[in-house]
Amino acid sequence: MNILFIMYDQLRFDYLSCAGHPHLHTPNFDRVAEMGVRFTEAYVQAPICGASRMSFYTGRYVSSHGAAWNNFPLRVGEHTMGDHLRNCGMECWLIGKTHMKADVAGMERLGLTPDNTIGARQAECGFDAWIRDDGLWAQGPDGFYDEKRSPYNEYLKSQGYEAENPWATFANAGVEEDMDIASGWMFANADKPANIKERDSETPWLTRKTIEFIDQATNPWCAHVSFIKPHWPYIVPAPYHNMYSTNHVPAATRHEAEQANPHPVYEAYMGNKIAHAFQRDEVRQKVIPAYMGLIKQCDDQLGVLLDHLEQTDQMQNTMIVLTSDHGDYLGDHWLGEKDLFHAQSVKVPMIIYDPRPQADVARGTTCDALVESIDLAPTFVEAAGGEVPDHILEGRSLIPWLHGQTPDWRSYAISEFDYSSNPQATKLGLHPKDCRLFMVFDGRYKLMHAEGGFRPMLFDLHTDPEEFHDLAKGDDHAAEIQRLYDYLHEWALRCSQRITKSNSDIETTRGKSLKRGVLPFMYDGSEVPLEWTQKYRGQATGSYIDDETTPSDS
Amino acid sequence: MNILFIMYDQLRFDYLSCAGHPHLHTPNFDRVAEMGVRFTEAYVQAPICGASRMSFYTGRYVSSHGAAWNNFPLRVGEHTMGDHLRNCGMECWLIGKTHMKADVAGMERLGLTPDNTIGARQAECGFDAWIRDDGLWAQGPDGFYDEKRSPYNEYLKSQGYEAENPWATFANAGVEEDMDIASGWMFANADKPANIKERDSETPWLTRKTIEFIDQATNPWCAHVSFIKPHWPYIVPAPYHNMYSTNHVPAATRHEAEQANPHPVYEAYMGNKIAHAFQRDEVRQKVIPAYMGLIKQCDDQLGVLLDHLEQTDQMQNTMIVLTSDHGDYLGDHWLGEKDLFHAQSVKVPMIIYDPRPQADVARGTTCDALVESIDLAPTFVEAAGGEVPDHILEGRSLIPWLHGQTPDWRSYAISEFDYSSNPQATKLGLHPKDCRLFMVFDGRYKLMHAEGGFRPMLFDLHTDPEEFHDLAKGDDHAAEIQRLYDYLHEWALRCSQRITKSNSDIETTRGKSLKRGVLPFMYDGSEVPLEWTQKYRGQATGSYIDDETTPSDS
Repeated sequence: MNILFIMYDQLRFDYLSCAGHPHLHTPNFDRVAEMGVRFTEAYVQAPICGASRMSFYTGRYVSSHGAAWNNFPLRVGEHTMGDHLRNCGMECWLIGKTHMKADVAGMERLGLTPDNTIGARQAECGFDAWIRDDGLWAQGPDGFYDEKRSPYNEYLKSQGYEAENPWATFANAGVEEDMDIASGWMFANADKPANIKERDSETPWLTRKTIEFIDQATNPWCAHVSFIKPHWPYIVPAPYHNMYSTNHVPAATRHEAEQANPHPVYEAYMGNKIAHAFQRDEVRQKVIPAYMGLIKQCDDQLGVLLDHLEQTDQMQNTMIVLTSDHGDYLGDHWLGEKDLFHAQSVKVPMIIYDPRPQADVARGTTCDALVESIDLAPTFVEAAGGEVPDHILEGRSLIPWLHGQTPDWRSYAISEFDYSSNPQATKLGLHPKDCRLFMVFDGRYKLMHAEGGFRPMLFDLHTDPEEFHDLAKGDDHAAEIQRLYDYLHEWALRCSQRITKSNSDIETTRGKSLKRGVLPFMYDGSEVPLEWTQKYRGQATGSYIDDETTPSDS
Repeated sequence: MNILFIMYDQLRFDYLSCAGHPHLHTPNFDRVAEMGVRFTEAYVQAPICGASRMSFYTGRYVSSHGAAWNNFPLRVGEHTMGDHLRNCGMECWLIGKTHMKADVAGMERLGLTPDNTIGARQAECGFDAWIRDDGLWAQGPDGFYDEKRSPYNEYLKSQGYEAENPWATFANAGVEEDMDIASGWMFANADKPANIKERDSETPWLTRKTIEFIDQATNPWCAHVSFIKPHWPYIVPAPYHNMYSTNHVPAATRHEAEQANPHPVYEAYMGNKIAHAFQRDEVRQKVIPAYMGLIKQCDDQLGVLLDHLEQTDQMQNTMIVLTSDHGDYLGDHWLGEKDLFHAQSVKVPMIIYDPRPQADVARGTTCDALVESIDLAPTFVEAAGGEVPDHILEGRSLIPWLHGQTPDWRSYAISEFDYSSNPQATKLGLHPKDCRLFMVFDGRYKLMHAEGGFRPMLFDLHTDPEEFHDLAKGDDHAAEIQRLYDYLHEWALRCSQRITKSNSDIETTRGKSLKRGVLPFMYDGSEVPLEWTQKYRGQATGSYIDDETTPSDS
């Protein structure tokens, strides 16, 4: 079996027709959902690209892998999906984005360079890179945000898009009538078509790269196909730019109650630039149709991929996973972007098709178990026929759910966010170590704990599914708050760093030191079998005891 | 300044005359205490050799470095004292024991081998090895406990001690009148002199190695001089074997109340082989005089080292640290060995001499601040003139205390123990991940939390300094228990793995992505300085918008 692990960037859980979107029709996502299981309660371990992805790829919580925000390097030696899969005979390839920052200092310290396989895997988050393109070729007075080379920009140049950075000035920009560039960074331009042939835009380009990969693969593979879209800049080529209009833009999911006595961290977020932008109706009305167009394009290209698998007779031996690294507030809760723990940000699509007959019983169903993004790594290891290294991987295989079983499961999902690099940290005057947020969600109640001395936030999603009413504002609900804190504390004390010694190793080697002569409990040797001590009962070869009684002076 | 970082193995905090021992006179320990500061409340992060030492060497809690028990490998890439000191221009050498197990699998995965400096440092816990000898050359039917080479055994052989393993049959054994070997593993033999010339025994041998090192050193150095003694086997050469007698053996610090309704983990420990042995008076009466003799020999050899520093005029530029990796119950609390959190096990000697004039004000004083073993690494970095990397090191520099200041300090000390490899885990029927104990001590109350669903233990050291009365047996003290749990939970949520990004880096780079063109908040560009966006306002080089409106099929 092969694994096609497809990730979209910043795709909200509810912007798919199978998830109930009223206007956006995504027949190809729906097609995979009909073939597999759609997990309706899937949470990322951090609502931010880099940290979330490091959790997907390592199968470990953010506090365990340590790469807590975008471009915080993943420490050398952290095990990844690629390591585990190769251990069970499956290749693991990257096609697209990881947002992984290599631990250059750590690599240098160990003498590792990316010019050989070992170093390259350390630098690429354990993947072998078919093509790496993080898809964010932003550029400003201090240079490029991403200092790597851009295969996509190279492709555009090869196709005649003449510019230093055609990603910015063609793929993510429109063009004015006077031939001025209409940057996709500006929301005012989101309704313009990107100045690029649709087939040259990012999603079709990466889809073609994926097909190239699939067509040449011979060994069992896992391919992480990782699209930058529908991540901003919000601009999409024709014909997608005008498939949706302001009529398709729902009212913002927000409530005045949210602005009354808000949690200080939430308040700081509501006051940031991005939130202010998305609080404007004209921004939502420009951006959301473009966002929907980007998703529609993703869906069409997914159809291309699925058709290719069918045409090449690979659908029955390919596991397909569709997910995202986090959502997008789009103005809901008075916010833009992601970062906090409302469903719009922290909940993601998670659709898995397992081609094996054991999965037939569950095809086309949904599952509302609390799934975490770290569950994919052990799922893939199990799918590859390996033993899950549960002293390293903190997630749990989803295979039982895919096969219609009902395993014992977690009682709560955890997510984390480190905002030490955000302006909100400055605003709140916090030390970086105090800029950490934790979500605990038990399926009904959702608690946000904030380090730094703040009160928590609490939502009851049964009575308040839209998460408008922060119950921790008042004095009630102390018992629920305590119960969720108990979960958080249980989780915080977990054993996450004993990665060099497996649980089965421990059980196997328990007591073995006795048979290697470590016997600090014997009075006279009668406590152990004769053969353990008889070597001491042989003849001494001489006596060396000093007759003099003065100590040595070295 | 150089740093002489001396560790004794299994040296109890109270077996020194400066710490009040009634019979054991240790003038050389006392001499350093008079020159420096003796910390009377110093706690190790794990009361077991390997895990404790990994905390000393990494400056990090056990849950942070992950090497939770003896011979659990320290993961490749974990930073150590040696790394930090070399970063500020100080060499860092090992002379003796570390009990560090190299992460061989992790090294192989990264292509590292110990035959070059980078690999050797990974295999030696970040030290450059002047001489590595872990000092426990136990041997049984399954072979040697320690599979490395033993420089000490090689030394003994060179001196004519004819045996396969002269460590076992000479240095740690006596000889019977009939020339049978009287193994030091058997407590019945603890009153015999070891069958070795005193100068050839382990402590003088390592002292001479230390002097060899000091005499050749040219660059600033930290030397970790790490003696195996007074660790078992409890046997010592003449004249130390009969310096102390049963008259010098104190009554065991134990109480019948401890055996009434004991905590299940404590109960399991009281029932183990080692505890049973030390519950016998004849064991204590044989062992404790030998243990005292071993310490007396350590003290004499410390005198040799101190004299050498004076004679070579190095006392005024050498920081001296005397400590231990944990204690020894010696029958107290009905226990032998270590592992739990009574003072006899978890509290260690900690004496530091800082030669600089700023330390004059504090010479000869004691300090009762809650010190943790992880404080040494940052102390050394500061002594070496470096900046403490506080995103990696979890301890705090002790220099302010050495200079007579009263810094803001921690409110509680933490220690941990993983007993998953002990027979008690089997007895209690626990999964390895549940075999974890945590101590929280605030200077008065000491809480032990046990994973696996057990109640805690609680002692009030003001009213019960001997720790006989476990207050968590009853229903009282809920408030104290909760307070200490709050500390534990605060600690558990600490940021420990973000080791690739420093706090100052975060503060410096905050908001920098804006100037690299990441601007997901602009409506029309008026939100940012003109120069950030003007490149988008240049002329487009052409229009590529498709007139056709069919999507690509990749």
